[in-house]
Amino acid sequence: MVRALMLMVPLLLLTAPAWAQDDAPAVSAADAMFTADNIWMMVSTFLVFIMHLGFASVETGLTRAKNTVNILFKNTVIVAIGLLTYAAVGFNLMYPGGDYAGAWFGFAGFGISLPEGGDTLAYNGHFTYWTDFLFQGMFAATAATIVSGAVAERVKLGTFLLFSAIYVAVVYPIVGMWGWGGGWLAARGFHDFAGSTFVHSVGGWAALAGVLVLGPRLGKYSNGTIYPIMGHNLPLATAGMFFLWLGWFGFNGGSVLSADAATVSLVLVTTTLAAAAGLISSMAVSWIVQKKPDHTMILNGTLAGLVGITAGADCVTPMQSIIIGAVAGIIVVGAVIAIDRAKIDDPVGAISVHLVCGVWGTLAVGIWGEDYSLATQAIGVVVPGVVCFTVAFALFFVLKKTIGLRVPADEELRGLDLGEHGQEAYAGFQIF
Amino acid sequence: MVRALMLMVPLLLLTAPAWAQDDAPAVSAADAMFTADNIWMMVSTFLVFIMHLGFASVETGLTRAKNTVNILFKNTVIVAIGLLTYAAVGFNLMYPGGDYAGAWFGFAGFGISLPEGGDTLAYNGHFTYWTDFLFQGMFAATAATIVSGAVAERVKLGTFLLFSAIYVAVVYPIVGMWGWGGGWLAARGFHDFAGSTFVHSVGGWAALAGVLVLGPRLGKYSNGTIYPIMGHNLPLATAGMFFLWLGWFGFNGGSVLSADAATVSLVLVTTTLAAAAGLISSMAVSWIVQKKPDHTMILNGTLAGLVGITAGADCVTPMQSIIIGAVAGIIVVGAVIAIDRAKIDDPVGAISVHLVCGVWGTLAVGIWGEDYSLATQAIGVVVPGVVCFTVAFALFFVLKKTIGLRVPADEELRGLDLGEHGQEAYAGFQIF
Amino acid sequence: MVRALMLMVPLLLLTAPAWAQDDAPAVSAADAMFTADNIWMMVSTFLVFIMHLGFASVETGLTRAKNTVNILFKNTVIVAIGLLTYAAVGFNLMYPGGDYAGAWFGFAGFGISLPEGGDTLAYNGHFTYWTDFLFQGMFAATAATIVSGAVAERVKLGTFLLFSAIYVAVVYPIVGMWGWGGGWLAARGFHDFAGSTFVHSVGGWAALAGVLVLGPRLGKYSNGTIYPIMGHNLPLATAGMFFLWLGWFGFNGGSVLSADAATVSLVLVTTTLAAAAGLISSMAVSWIVQKKPDHTMILNGTLAGLVGITAGADCVTPMQSIIIGAVAGIIVVGAVIAIDRAKIDDPVGAISVHLVCGVWGTLAVGIWGEDYSLATQAIGVVVPGVVCFTVAFALFFVLKKTIGLRVPADEELRGLDLGEHGQEAYAGFQIF
Repeated sequence: MVRALMLMVPLLLLTAPAWAQDDAPAVSAADAMFTADNIWMMVSTFLVFIMHLGFASVETGLTRAKNTVNILFKNTVIVAIGLLTYAAVGFNLMYPGGDYAGAWFGFAGFGISLPEGGDTLAYNGHFTYWTDFLFQGMFAATAATIVSGAVAERVKLGTFLLFSAIYVAVVYPIVGMWGWGGGWLAARGFHDFAGSTFVHSVGGWAALAGVLVLGPRLGKYSNGTIYPIMGHNLPLATAGMFFLWLGWFGFNGGSVLSADAATVSLVLVTTTLAAAAGLISSMAVSWIVQKKPDHTMILNGTLAGLVGITAGADCVTPMQSIIIGAVAGIIVVGAVIAIDRAKIDDPVGAISVHLVCGVWGTLAVGIWGEDYSLATQAIGVVVPGVVCFTVAFALFFVLKKTIGLRVPADEELRGLDLGEHGQEAYAGFQIF
Repeated sequence: MVRALMLMVPLLLLTAPAWAQDDAPAVSAADAMFTADNIWMMVSTFLVFIMHLGFASVETGLTRAKNTVNILFKNTVIVAIGLLTYAAVGFNLMYPGGDYAGAWFGFAGFGISLPEGGDTLAYNGHFTYWTDFLFQGMFAATAATIVSGAVAERVKLGTFLLFSAIYVAVVYPIVGMWGWGGGWLAARGFHDFAGSTFVHSVGGWAALAGVLVLGPRLGKYSNGTIYPIMGHNLPLATAGMFFLWLGWFGFNGGSVLSADAATVSLVLVTTTLAAAAGLISSMAVSWIVQKKPDHTMILNGTLAGLVGITAGADCVTPMQSIIIGAVAGIIVVGAVIAIDRAKIDDPVGAISVHLVCGVWGTLAVGIWGEDYSLATQAIGVVVPGVVCFTVAFALFFVLKKTIGLRVPADEELRGLDLGEHGQEAYAGFQIF
Repeated sequence: MVRALMLMVPLLLLTAPAWAQDDAPAVSAADAMFTADNIWMMVSTFLVFIMHLGFASVETGLTRAKNTVNILFKNTVIVAIGLLTYAAVGFNLMYPGGDYAGAWFGFAGFGISLPEGGDTLAYNGHFTYWTDFLFQGMFAATAATIVSGAVAERVKLGTFLLFSAIYVAVVYPIVGMWGWGGGWLAARGFHDFAGSTFVHSVGGWAALAGVLVLGPRLGKYSNGTIYPIMGHNLPLATAGMFFLWLGWFGFNGGSVLSADAATVSLVLVTTTLAAAAGLISSMAVSWIVQKKPDHTMILNGTLAGLVGITAGADCVTPMQSIIIGAVAGIIVVGAVIAIDRAKIDDPVGAISVHLVCGVWGTLAVGIWGEDYSLATQAIGVVVPGVVCFTVAFALFFVLKKTIGLRVPADEELRGLDLGEHGQEAYAGFQIF
């Protein structure tokens, strides 16, 4: 019907002068700007969405073939869990409204709908209520996805999904509200532009807690020796990194919350240069330390640069972004090696990338961001860290003692694909 | 040359005040809105384009390695067939102009160009003639692609390409004209926002006809037993689902035919929530019925939610979209199982996803869409269904009796890659 | 903080009338248009970025499994090299400013920053300085990536990265300046809209030089026989082609350097139709010449159509774009076969696609572009060609005689993954 109407228009216009708009109802410049801002936020939303494919691909590629279905399954379901719980409670926990300014907690009620008298258009002057929900909702699930990679290849499917649902529905939005929803960290002048802390560290602390409660994969550490477990599909992992980088343009670019040309384009430049610098520095360190350049290290180095710049992408210069990214690329190689030596088994390096570099990025704002204090940034690292780690640890511990957290040893050896899904990822491959 | 000119501009402007536009020829707010609308439609076009990669990936991933080249080939060629036939005849069959209002058929002539006196800009007030062609042309091939999945692993390449060319050049645009080109269904108030019927069912009916004429794959049904044939690459199938979901943002979002912030953002929310709901409900049903959650079921459940919401994404509430998606996710699991039991061999579940859920989505508009009637929606299901199924069945039947529809049994056993292309998809894989 | 402020706004607005912008500071139509233009350029930048995943996927898919890590590594690092060298010197070599109009060389200094008194917003009236840098910087690395495919499976990693860094930092921007930076070719009226010459041929000449200095892969030509070496992952190669096509919408569409609706949408149509025509014509030729349609030929045929239309996408009609693309699709099949018979070993057909069709596209502007001369276009083919080939050949030759260009024979046989990286791409695959 809509399309049919559109079709009529050109014919009527054949008698009109060149510009169709002459006959249209008056459009104001503010309308056009609002529409442009809203387009930008929608495009950013799509880019954040594609990060979920990126996470799924990196995690699948860096683990073994026998657990592929399970990993793909988790990463697919998490998107839906994130969106639906965000619609149910998350959005209104994270952005409860001005009554809770400076607070630790607020809740604007179940479901998604404007307060009475509100208008989806007259929402914030830049985009609609629906666009805001969708952009923020796409963010929500990423925190849980970070956990997925760390606990991969041994966690029970149902338990993990339950943990994710609780963490993303309750913990993520409440902690995020402290900074982004007008809460106490916002009141103190803490700055986390797009989520080095509120997304990456929040996910990273839970990843660390999960790994500690869960323990390493069978055969990873044995008789004091560290056995590497290689990924089964590096083209997939590489594609995943590209999707994540691509998605970060929306993750950071959309966090400007308008299409303001000067700010958004600077954010895209700092984001990109930090990623490139993290890539090169991690390559250099890997080449020197490991003698040969390790491909998975540069994948993680790039992501490290991106996580590192996320807190300050809007308040550092391009040159500073290169430094932040390069340092992140160095840190992540050291962290991956150190965490493995500490016998904390993180199959994809999620703790190194998201937690360690998330902390680095948040502190870097205190170092280079003109209007921000290192002390406040440190508070913003520590308090959310303590809360997220404690809650996640407790949650994992309770789940372990009740419904069980880990698959049986024989299932782990055969693979979770057969055990949890009765399915193989490459079943039709051999039948040539 | 263009770039060289651009380069000169900043230098001249160094003496000018802050905003470069001050010196530019006057820009009206309507111009800016038109440009924004046009950007949105171009972005939507790109997203619909990426759906073709999604279809190719899902179909390849859910079938066997020995038929991979063939499937990739078909899905690649179809894009070109769709675009070129749409340029030649399809666009002017689908949108023949106001003279054919309320009609069953119209044709504005071969090739793409505006009626005399027309202007690409003064086309419909929101985007140019070229943008319209490209957006609609990207849609065209999707209908044929749906058929591809259902007839995979046994259809003759040349015959399938010929069928596709005819179907997409003639059947798709004529039936689509009934609703979107101002035809008789539009006149009756039938509503199919973005194509649950005009894309998905139109493709789905042909898929059903093709499978019936073609018969099942060798070894699928034998001595009364149903043998499952597993896909060979679930990471690929999963990536395909993500590309399809991503593309659907443009498929539905672009179908607003402007960047109108309120409408587009609501459409994106209903589209997304329906997908998430279909994912979760199909997971639940699969977990209960099949004891273990089947990954391919949630892929199809997500797509089912998307197909289901496509007809009404602009006229239902977010809560209703969750219901529509959830029901679609349940329906698709039942349909996949029932169709397999009926010994209709559809390797990827295309009939269940696109036809069954396309019908569901079209009827759902009659249930929840305020201004629409269930009876009219049913007419819009039945008449296009009868026509598409009959034409497709006749076409497949004639092709079977003339040039042949199915590859020889020995080629099917060895794989179509060697038989049709003399090529293997993973030839260099073993040479370690 | 930014988010927190945004959050306050809707609450204040609940008392305001429908449109939030009524209270906002006055927005001019020119501001809105500038914002829309800038959005378009940012989206185009993202699309060009995704081409790097496309190149990586095509090259990986068309080569053997044992060299996969190496190929992924090269294609990942090149993105960072391209961006960082472009920030350091490339941008200011390519666009040195008006003082160098008509010149062969110019340099505006190290690093990225506007000339004194400049303003990122008042930069060129359509997008910011940062957007310009990022869009152009994303282009830079593509030239080096083209070389990567041709020298794959035998080039030493470190040497290749060094070559790439020099070529992309110095040669690419200096030659590009001749046409796009206001140099001597621009002054002569040479037209290369988006880079058939300045990107694709510049890369293609270096690819040819590299292959000649390097020699063929072991076992490719032996005792007068040509042995085909098959790719190991055609789904990956196919996905790569789709990513490249998608990226080309930004590569060509963004080269309009504004979101001007009429020009951009026409460019998208010519780009798309040329790709489709190249696909179909290469399929036809392959089917006739090779008896069975070769899937890798249609992948290269599509890319050939895209390379062919790149120089003239803004100055030919849709019908002419179909001819240009169709001819490119025919040329590329012939070129791939002829180059192989000449025992020039180009694993992915990079020379045929980018060099041969880049030349074709540049000349096609002289044939169909109304305001352009075939003679000038030929000069623009020959001079950059001689310079690029000579410099690249000399560079490869010096590198060969100093640090070495080729891996040892035993490493080539075992694969570069183990030799250069000590890593395998599918290590975890067998452990079922």
